[in-house]
Amino acid sequence: MNINEESLELHRKLRGKITIKGKVRIKTTNDLSLLYTPGVAEPCRIIAKDKSAVYDLTMKNNTVAIVTDGTRVLGLGDIGPEAALPVMEGKALIMKEFGNIDAIPICLNEKDPDQIVEIVKAIAPVFGAINLEDISTPKVFDIEERLTNELDIPVFHDDQHGTAMVVLAGLINALKITGKKKGEIKVVVNGSGSAGHAIAKLLLAYGIADITIFDRNGAIYSGRPNLEQHKAKMAEITNKQQFKGVLKDFEGADAIISATAPGGLSHDAIRKMNEQKIVFALANPISEISLEESKQLGIVVFGTGRSDYPNQLNNSVIFPGFLRALLDLRVKRITDKMKIAASEAVAKLVSKEELAVGKIIPDTFDKRLVKRIVKGVKKSLD
Amino acid sequence: MNINEESLELHRKLRGKITIKGKVRIKTTNDLSLLYTPGVAEPCRIIAKDKSAVYDLTMKNNTVAIVTDGTRVLGLGDIGPEAALPVMEGKALIMKEFGNIDAIPICLNEKDPDQIVEIVKAIAPVFGAINLEDISTPKVFDIEERLTNELDIPVFHDDQHGTAMVVLAGLINALKITGKKKGEIKVVVNGSGSAGHAIAKLLLAYGIADITIFDRNGAIYSGRPNLEQHKAKMAEITNKQQFKGVLKDFEGADAIISATAPGGLSHDAIRKMNEQKIVFALANPISEISLEESKQLGIVVFGTGRSDYPNQLNNSVIFPGFLRALLDLRVKRITDKMKIAASEAVAKLVSKEELAVGKIIPDTFDKRLVKRIVKGVKKSLD
Repeated sequence: MNINEESLELHRKLRGKITIKGKVRIKTTNDLSLLYTPGVAEPCRIIAKDKSAVYDLTMKNNTVAIVTDGTRVLGLGDIGPEAALPVMEGKALIMKEFGNIDAIPICLNEKDPDQIVEIVKAIAPVFGAINLEDISTPKVFDIEERLTNELDIPVFHDDQHGTAMVVLAGLINALKITGKKKGEIKVVVNGSGSAGHAIAKLLLAYGIADITIFDRNGAIYSGRPNLEQHKAKMAEITNKQQFKGVLKDFEGADAIISATAPGGLSHDAIRKMNEQKIVFALANPISEISLEESKQLGIVVFGTGRSDYPNQLNNSVIFPGFLRALLDLRVKRITDKMKIAASEAVAKLVSKEELAVGKIIPDTFDKRLVKRIVKGVKKSLD
Repeated sequence: MNINEESLELHRKLRGKITIKGKVRIKTTNDLSLLYTPGVAEPCRIIAKDKSAVYDLTMKNNTVAIVTDGTRVLGLGDIGPEAALPVMEGKALIMKEFGNIDAIPICLNEKDPDQIVEIVKAIAPVFGAINLEDISTPKVFDIEERLTNELDIPVFHDDQHGTAMVVLAGLINALKITGKKKGEIKVVVNGSGSAGHAIAKLLLAYGIADITIFDRNGAIYSGRPNLEQHKAKMAEITNKQQFKGVLKDFEGADAIISATAPGGLSHDAIRKMNEQKIVFALANPISEISLEESKQLGIVVFGTGRSDYPNQLNNSVIFPGFLRALLDLRVKRITDKMKIAASEAVAKLVSKEELAVGKIIPDTFDKRLVKRIVKGVKKSLD
């Protein structure tokens, strides 16, 4: 039985990977009177007087909505809200297992971004944070920005923030190994979807000044004809040298972060990199280049999303801890500073002794992750 | 410590009455691959091909959304979505405890009925049923009707359906005790909110032909000036004798079902009833008339919502089982036949030996309730 068949059988058996559990039992009429009417009227009255009490008296303090419209699910594309549900349940399961977070899948039968914004705003009262998931670009950028501005709870987009943070964590350690300095390196971001977009923004915020983003038409530069709005914004703050060609002609990169598809990363570009090559090939489940190719191309630090390769740059390393931090610290709005702090906390979990070309990121199952991330984010708020 | 203080302390301690629980643990990379990527892609693909598979492969088959806008919470009125959350969590806790249902509170920061309809339609993919709760009348009638017509999952409104079913169950047994016949009795429904409205409709469907509804302006009759739309509809099918006065002048009722407020039920009307008086006084937490008054007025069968009186007509007796039935039988639309079947199943749980003026309804904690209701509703579908 292959993994697909095995997964299908498991899903058929479970009929839902998560369930609701009462924190208390109702055994007597007195229990009912305290947990429901008439006693429940008292916490209601308290919250009606002071809305912030909802964090102390209800599930809101530990509850996250995983919101999708099913338009960009895994590599499967626009498969709809019902078909997206197994992924959202899986995400909720991970949040529970690793972060002790109560996450609820919200799969929307609605694709219009204006309406998605209105719906998420409407359902927000129950939730302490919103996790956007598998919504197609570019509309997700607009949805995220508007919700961030209009809600008083944080809006996390794992495809952007999670990926960017795990990449930064890996890069921090890759720089240590290769002896390169963040202020001096030249970085290529290959791919300009959610992930590429967010990676470039976070690396800039981290202090990497020389970044060039490529999409399938080549380098993104200021004034490129027909540039989409989110790319035009990035063109203003990247590509210092105003490179206008395609990736295979780009010379002298120190690190290439690729978030495209298998085969989407030019071998020539890797050959033209500086020594001590750092390449992250994030396409999932099959990375842009294989481990064998990475060796042939002289890559020194090679990271992917694959669990069967070294250096698995998996969002699961970071998002449970980061969401835990958002909830525990009652963050209203995510900042770059928080994200960088989380990446640094993750990077630091690989000790000097462990650090190696094949060990730049901690294991997803590392029990210290969540606490360290929360601690790191907390410190960044001071 | 009184019940309010005790409840508040309990809510403060719990910080949420329900939590998410994984049905499986994630302990290894292999677990992750089966429950999340890449394995999860397979159930996604299956559902994308055949949407109905979502019932077999996800949480949908056992999940109910408890939807409110917080506009009519308990007796507290329009206290908003945050303040409504303790009630919704309590409801979810009851659904879990009694019906093993996974219910999720959805408290909407949105009062416009058109927008509420759109939101509920948008979030429907995750849920096997919708439970509307504590939404003000008359807009809730419209919301319920439109959702029922436009969704392919059942829309339950406990304030209407639940209350009507438990009243019918109690009335069935009250008729047995008093020897009255459903086709011959004259019934008064006092109050024309969600509960009164729904009770009158269900009693009509059950075969009680002579029903007169009263609101605070008196009897509802066809042609009464300035009648709201939902009341005008009821005027067409009730009040056969075209009574146009107030309740205290109404003569010859066999049963009065009152869903108003403490003091909202005229003692004169009770005095003018036929012998073997049946009165249900449903105002909560304080009933329209007290147990002592009921005796002074010569009421034979007296039911209320109070747990400290005999004959507690509490929705909790019926809604967990009824929702369990909707999910298990994959009902698309609730019918009167199903509701009557549920009421009959509940009524039958009081054996001939037990049946008495003070025992017309089973205990909420009766372990047989859910199975019997499911069985009853199932039979009604044949």
